[in-house]
Amino acid sequence: MTSLSPHPDRLLPADPATRDIARSLYESVREAPILSPHGHVDAGLLVDDRPFGDPAALLITPDHYVLRLLHASGVPLEQLGVVPRDGRGGVADGREIWRALATHWDVFLGTPVRYWFETELHDVFGLTEQPSPANADEQYDHLAEALASEAMRPRALFERFRIEVLATTDDPASDLRAHAALRDDPAFAGRVLPTFRADSYFDPARPEWRDSLARLAEVSGIDTTTHAGLLEALRARREHFVRHGATASDTGVPDAGSEPLERADAERIHAAALRGPVSGADAAAYRHTMLFESAAMAADDGLVMQLHPGILRNHHRPTLERFGPDTGHDLPLTGSTYTEPLRPILERFGTHPRFRLVLFTVDETAFTREIAPLAGFYPSVYAGAPWWFIDTPAAIRRYREAVTDSVGFTKTSGFIDDTRAFCSIPARHDMSRRVDAGYLASLVVTHQLSEEDAHRTARDLVDRIPRQTFRL
Amino acid sequence: MTSLSPHPDRLLPADPATRDIARSLYESVREAPILSPHGHVDAGLLVDDRPFGDPAALLITPDHYVLRLLHASGVPLEQLGVVPRDGRGGVADGREIWRALATHWDVFLGTPVRYWFETELHDVFGLTEQPSPANADEQYDHLAEALASEAMRPRALFERFRIEVLATTDDPASDLRAHAALRDDPAFAGRVLPTFRADSYFDPARPEWRDSLARLAEVSGIDTTTHAGLLEALRARREHFVRHGATASDTGVPDAGSEPLERADAERIHAAALRGPVSGADAAAYRHTMLFESAAMAADDGLVMQLHPGILRNHHRPTLERFGPDTGHDLPLTGSTYTEPLRPILERFGTHPRFRLVLFTVDETAFTREIAPLAGFYPSVYAGAPWWFIDTPAAIRRYREAVTDSVGFTKTSGFIDDTRAFCSIPARHDMSRRVDAGYLASLVVTHQLSEEDAHRTARDLVDRIPRQTFRL
Amino acid sequence: MTSLSPHPDRLLPADPATRDIARSLYESVREAPILSPHGHVDAGLLVDDRPFGDPAALLITPDHYVLRLLHASGVPLEQLGVVPRDGRGGVADGREIWRALATHWDVFLGTPVRYWFETELHDVFGLTEQPSPANADEQYDHLAEALASEAMRPRALFERFRIEVLATTDDPASDLRAHAALRDDPAFAGRVLPTFRADSYFDPARPEWRDSLARLAEVSGIDTTTHAGLLEALRARREHFVRHGATASDTGVPDAGSEPLERADAERIHAAALRGPVSGADAAAYRHTMLFESAAMAADDGLVMQLHPGILRNHHRPTLERFGPDTGHDLPLTGSTYTEPLRPILERFGTHPRFRLVLFTVDETAFTREIAPLAGFYPSVYAGAPWWFIDTPAAIRRYREAVTDSVGFTKTSGFIDDTRAFCSIPARHDMSRRVDAGYLASLVVTHQLSEEDAHRTARDLVDRIPRQTFRL
Repeated sequence: MTSLSPHPDRLLPADPATRDIARSLYESVREAPILSPHGHVDAGLLVDDRPFGDPAALLITPDHYVLRLLHASGVPLEQLGVVPRDGRGGVADGREIWRALATHWDVFLGTPVRYWFETELHDVFGLTEQPSPANADEQYDHLAEALASEAMRPRALFERFRIEVLATTDDPASDLRAHAALRDDPAFAGRVLPTFRADSYFDPARPEWRDSLARLAEVSGIDTTTHAGLLEALRARREHFVRHGATASDTGVPDAGSEPLERADAERIHAAALRGPVSGADAAAYRHTMLFESAAMAADDGLVMQLHPGILRNHHRPTLERFGPDTGHDLPLTGSTYTEPLRPILERFGTHPRFRLVLFTVDETAFTREIAPLAGFYPSVYAGAPWWFIDTPAAIRRYREAVTDSVGFTKTSGFIDDTRAFCSIPARHDMSRRVDAGYLASLVVTHQLSEEDAHRTARDLVDRIPRQTFRL
Repeated sequence: MTSLSPHPDRLLPADPATRDIARSLYESVREAPILSPHGHVDAGLLVDDRPFGDPAALLITPDHYVLRLLHASGVPLEQLGVVPRDGRGGVADGREIWRALATHWDVFLGTPVRYWFETELHDVFGLTEQPSPANADEQYDHLAEALASEAMRPRALFERFRIEVLATTDDPASDLRAHAALRDDPAFAGRVLPTFRADSYFDPARPEWRDSLARLAEVSGIDTTTHAGLLEALRARREHFVRHGATASDTGVPDAGSEPLERADAERIHAAALRGPVSGADAAAYRHTMLFESAAMAADDGLVMQLHPGILRNHHRPTLERFGPDTGHDLPLTGSTYTEPLRPILERFGTHPRFRLVLFTVDETAFTREIAPLAGFYPSVYAGAPWWFIDTPAAIRRYREAVTDSVGFTKTSGFIDDTRAFCSIPARHDMSRRVDAGYLASLVVTHQLSEEDAHRTARDLVDRIPRQTFRL
Repeated sequence: MTSLSPHPDRLLPADPATRDIARSLYESVREAPILSPHGHVDAGLLVDDRPFGDPAALLITPDHYVLRLLHASGVPLEQLGVVPRDGRGGVADGREIWRALATHWDVFLGTPVRYWFETELHDVFGLTEQPSPANADEQYDHLAEALASEAMRPRALFERFRIEVLATTDDPASDLRAHAALRDDPAFAGRVLPTFRADSYFDPARPEWRDSLARLAEVSGIDTTTHAGLLEALRARREHFVRHGATASDTGVPDAGSEPLERADAERIHAAALRGPVSGADAAAYRHTMLFESAAMAADDGLVMQLHPGILRNHHRPTLERFGPDTGHDLPLTGSTYTEPLRPILERFGTHPRFRLVLFTVDETAFTREIAPLAGFYPSVYAGAPWWFIDTPAAIRRYREAVTDSVGFTKTSGFIDDTRAFCSIPARHDMSRRVDAGYLASLVVTHQLSEEDAHRTARDLVDRIPRQTFRL
């Protein structure tokens, strides 16, 4: 057996003088409340406050970071609890899934997934041994037992994790009943805020577009069979979100093109798409218009616009067909860009006092070349933290080294955990605090920042900066 | 009040053994004369040698690094002294501008602008407190008083800064009177060299192209209504520049395409552009021809060709319309590339003994992928130092780590400050010397370079290498 | 004279605590046998086992890393032993070539070429002084004498270098006689494996395509005048390679496009290309089909598919015309990409149990954006080590920092030396072992990896990982 005991100095710089400073910076923010302005936890979980149940269904199956590398190491998805669409072929039970993880534990060596997971298993669940085939059953029983306890209910964890704000991601058609229930519940002190995610309404070439529009019409009571109607319905739903505490929208698009069509052209494509397939060019032009219109709405209602272009969804069709979307093969596209495609939005709203745009990327080269230069001129633009494939200690460090030169700290977003794995939230924020402490310490020890300023900045990064950026 | 006292070891590596070596390397070049082969200071300033006047007009308004981040933090340009084209709306006076800087001093935390600025305020002006709203008026008065003194006249500073060579950037139509005056002035010992910057003559789609040609015709006495005439006039002006001490040209282009047109096609586009608008394709083809012809002239007259593709000018049209160009929103373009577009030039002149091409980039990915490989084969090609958005400690370090592998030190350009902020020149060169000392020390301490070779290289980097690269 | 004595701690991290751990990790693999699964040494050399002869012809002329930077520093290729195609113009003799290197020894300061070369000259040849004009003749004589000794014969060195597996790169038409001879020679204990490199058969626009097909037909006895015939012949030659110990193929293509044509279209282009020139679009479509078919064959016969897109061959036509190909001006192309172009192959074979694809790049940005994400989902995909322009200490470190986040260590390839410079093999592998030891130590000292796991991983990286990845 190998012990599992996350070191108190983990991720802090190796150089003793730098580490001392970093440790002190980290200590000052270690217990600060968590602001999580971008994530994918289900708000209903906190309304119901039911025990989580099976450990694998909580820790492994929904976390695509864990799933991906196990799949890449030869473990089929069904052995990790992913249910085939046609229901054919057995699906592993929780214990088998845990065994699969334990058997392949070594493939995570050196990765941040191992890092989070160790912290989570130790801090949240009290495990003290590395998973291995030998202890798999015992650990699984331990986890299952722990999860049955009162102390492991979602609300208890929410409090124990010191989460102050948790933003979810929600469809415009959502009634946000769970958010309302939490807000109105005197027994629940946290803030759980919806985030308006409308991109499934952007692309008329997507098979589900028509159904989405119909659902939106039903919910909003606004006819969405015209482009103008769709915009009106979305605007109405944004108001609904604002009334439920939303401070931000989120948008994922293949590219950041934002040149708006003439209204008549948009209507023509809208009508055609309701009748049948439209060309790729028409669909793209319509998408770009929708992005522009979203910015216009954001300048109106003040919802912070989060944008992350450049992901190709469902790269492996056989896996899509067998298991459905969100099964680990959404992959970064090359050549995603910001400066030129966002020009229509920024020419129009770039200096608008209510407009705010947080730019995320999975292409690290964009940080110095595009995102920092844009955030370094436009008052509305903020450099979003590393996201998805690059939300890791090494990449967060590179991000700071890349963007601080152009925009310092105040035009950055603060850390976002972007997770649906509720129990990993503290470990992720802790990781970010450690890495930022290390970065700030490196500036102090090379006399680029005073120790006092570093302390102030460390606190700002977990408090004032995300609060201001996301208007929390 | 927080003290302003740049640390003697700033920017040197944290590891004690490495720092010791770095300190010794830095000490050996700290006081070496400054060779500044690429910048934007006005030569007339040194001819007139008048007091600089208002501190804000010297230190803030003309420095787009400072301006940008203040604007990005919500300070309107007119509050920073930028004059609207139509003269409408008040413009802040110097004291107000200084207050705006002092109020937002924190947004520069961790940035190299803060680093330069602190060094400059301390070393050149003797300030000992960080700017703050509380001391803004006092500091402003101190600066204004200092600037009125004899010791702060341009020539006195030139000498105090130990500038040996200062290259300016000049339009081909310039008479270079200031350069001649300085050269002929027995009381002035420095070398102030013009640099031939002709790209405004490259693009027939630019609104000012026709006027530029007319002015060039007038100055040169050569008819520029034909393409051949334009080339002849430029060739004549290059001779004029050479006679005034120029050793280099500078060229900024959207892309590095260099495929020359047949002469007849170039003439056809030239004639058409004089009559009215030409297509984007024709304009690009003409631009590429002009770049090729510039290389041909460089191979003839030996002016070192500096090239920096990939900037999109005037990204924010409303700011352009209100304030004019050069107001902080020239932004890096994605996808700028060198290897393929420069092939026509390199096939023809790449091994020519007089031809020399220094390649700059704002896209750091080009260093290992294109610039170093090109400089690592072609005798004529040199890897230019990080420029503009990336002339920062972190990026200079990454540049060294990227290009040294392929080209060592001798095929690099040496530092360029690229500044119009005269008083920031020493701080910028000092920064570069510190970062290079740190990089060399890291090679010594990992036994990739002997201490003796490191010392020799540190000296070469501020002396022999820029001297040879730019034929000073 | 300056001494040449590679330091025992070279390339290990500067921080004392990290260095101690790194040293211990390095020591544990320092003498491990060399597995070289990708290289360009001629197998015949080991069959003949003749003395190498002239030092320059062994150490300088064939090593394009050395050649390139000397050429970039102004030494013409003919002075480095490269023979002009027309035989005109004198070619330097070995002694003159050595003098040229000694005279320009300084241009290699700080480069990994200097690092390898110093190690090689010291460890293999016993030189104790840095090359210089003063000692050039003496060193040349020393080298020439050493090379004449028994101990310096290829087989003796093979043993002394502790090479266990050496993969060569071979044309499908090769009879692999040398490989068979070595396998059947009881006096030779090493494994020298052929690698199937068929890309010269992919591109019907290449001038040599028709001749290659004719030669292949002759060797295989299969008619290659049809596309189907070509595929059949290649399949047969792959079997021939497998019988001679091959475990892998290698493929270099301008882009990684892999969309297969309908069979009839492929036949049409094949037939047209035999008759005369085909369009660029047809040639590209045919190439993409060939890449797809290679993957299909790999899924059948289990040869590990190595792929390295993105090199533009023979950038400088005058050098090509005068000296032929492989003379130092093959250069990285911008914009090479993996995720989209490889989709047809990965949709079809990405989860196939026999298919394995090792992706190499010269564009470091692809590591986090494409290669690691692909290797992090597809069981068949492995992240290849830095190659060619980036097989350097700094880039290997960046590679580890880039890919470990997504794929840990088990989905990487292990080091490949990719060299035709036989005597540089140990120095290159030693470099890689040192850099990996340093990287692992940095994870240990920041408590991201236990010391025990680091030791295990260090050993795996030189043994189990390349063995499994390349099915050795």
